[in-house]
Amino acid sequence: MDLTEKKLRGEQVFSGGFLKVTRDEVELPDGKVATREFIRHPGAVAVLALTDDDRLVMERQYRYPAGREFIEIPAGKIDPAEPPHETARRELLEETGFTASQWRYLGKAWPCIGYADEVIHYYLATGLRQQARQLDEGEFLEVMLLDRDEVQQMALDGTIADSKTIVGLHWLAAWQQGKLPGETV
Amino acid sequence: MDLTEKKLRGEQVFSGGFLKVTRDEVELPDGKVATREFIRHPGAVAVLALTDDDRLVMERQYRYPAGREFIEIPAGKIDPAEPPHETARRELLEETGFTASQWRYLGKAWPCIGYADEVIHYYLATGLRQQARQLDEGEFLEVMLLDRDEVQQMALDGTIADSKTIVGLHWLAAWQQGKLPGETV
Repeated sequence: MDLTEKKLRGEQVFSGGFLKVTRDEVELPDGKVATREFIRHPGAVAVLALTDDDRLVMERQYRYPAGREFIEIPAGKIDPAEPPHETARRELLEETGFTASQWRYLGKAWPCIGYADEVIHYYLATGLRQQARQLDEGEFLEVMLLDRDEVQQMALDGTIADSKTIVGLHWLAAWQQGKLPGETV
Repeated sequence: MDLTEKKLRGEQVFSGGFLKVTRDEVELPDGKVATREFIRHPGAVAVLALTDDDRLVMERQYRYPAGREFIEIPAGKIDPAEPPHETARRELLEETGFTASQWRYLGKAWPCIGYADEVIHYYLATGLRQQARQLDEGEFLEVMLLDRDEVQQMALDGTIADSKTIVGLHWLAAWQQGKLPGETV
C-alpha cells in the first residue's frame, strides 16, 4: 500500500529567533486533504568521543524546554552548506576542546518524526587530544569524562534520558561488538 | 556548577492546529538574559509489543516532515488527564488491534531536548491478543509482525531510523538480558 502524502500547497506560518514552522496541505492516500505542521531544522550531528582509556566525553547541560539537566553526548546543528562530518569536528572542539585523529560514521536517525524534519548524523571519534574549548556566547555546559561501562549503565537506570544520547550509545555498543561497520570518514 | 536557567517572562508566540510554540526570556547562569523558543507537547507513549512467538508489532507509516516512510513501534500522544499507561493501552489497540495481558514500564526519554518539552514513556506489552484496530480519521499505517532479531538488525543497518524506536529496542534488549527491571504496571 502506498502511504505517501503529497504536498498540495504550503507556507511558513511562524518564524521565530530560533524555530521555523511550516504548514502544508497534503493529499492523503485516500485522496482526502489534511494539514501537516512541522519544524524545519537544518539537521544535526552527535559525537561518541572515546578516549584511549575507554572513557566517553559527555556533557552536563541544562535544557530549558524540559526544565532539567541532561547528561548528553556532544552535538550541534549543521551550519548552512557545512558537510556533517565537519560539523562533528567543529562541535566536538568548540564544546569539549577535543580533537580526534580518527572519525567513523555510525548512522543517522530522525529524533522527532511527528513534527520535525531534523535528522541527526552520528560519528565515533577516537585518538582524542585535548585543547581549549570555545563555547558559543551564552552556552553553558560542563564536560565530563566517564567510564564507558558506567555511561552504558546510566542509559538504563534513567540517569541518561536524552534519546539522542541513548541512540548513540546503542550504536557504539553495536560497533564495539562488530555489528556495525562504522565507515571511516 | 549550577547550570539552571530561570524564567523571567514568557508567552505563547504561535498556536497552530497542531503545534504550539512558547518563547521565554531566561536568566542564564552568568546573569545575562537569553531567549528560549520551544514546542509545548503533552507527552507521548511508545509500546514494545512482543508476541508469544517472539515477534514485534511494528508499523510502517509515512512521515510527512521527513518526506519518507518509517518502520516504528506503536506510539501516540497522551490525552489531557490521561495516565500514560492508559495511553499505551489505547494507542496499541487503536493503531494495531492488539490487547495485552501484561504491561511493564521500561523508562522514559526526551526525544528533542533542544526545542521541545516532549517526554516519551516506554512500555513493554506481552500476552497479546488481536482484535480489530480503530484508526483515527486520516491515519494511515500498515501493521507488521516482525521477528525480534530481525527488528534489532534493522535498527543497525539503517532500515529503522526513528530514534523513538531505536531507544525502545535498546531497552527491550536490556530487559531481555535482565539489565532493566521493567516494573509491572
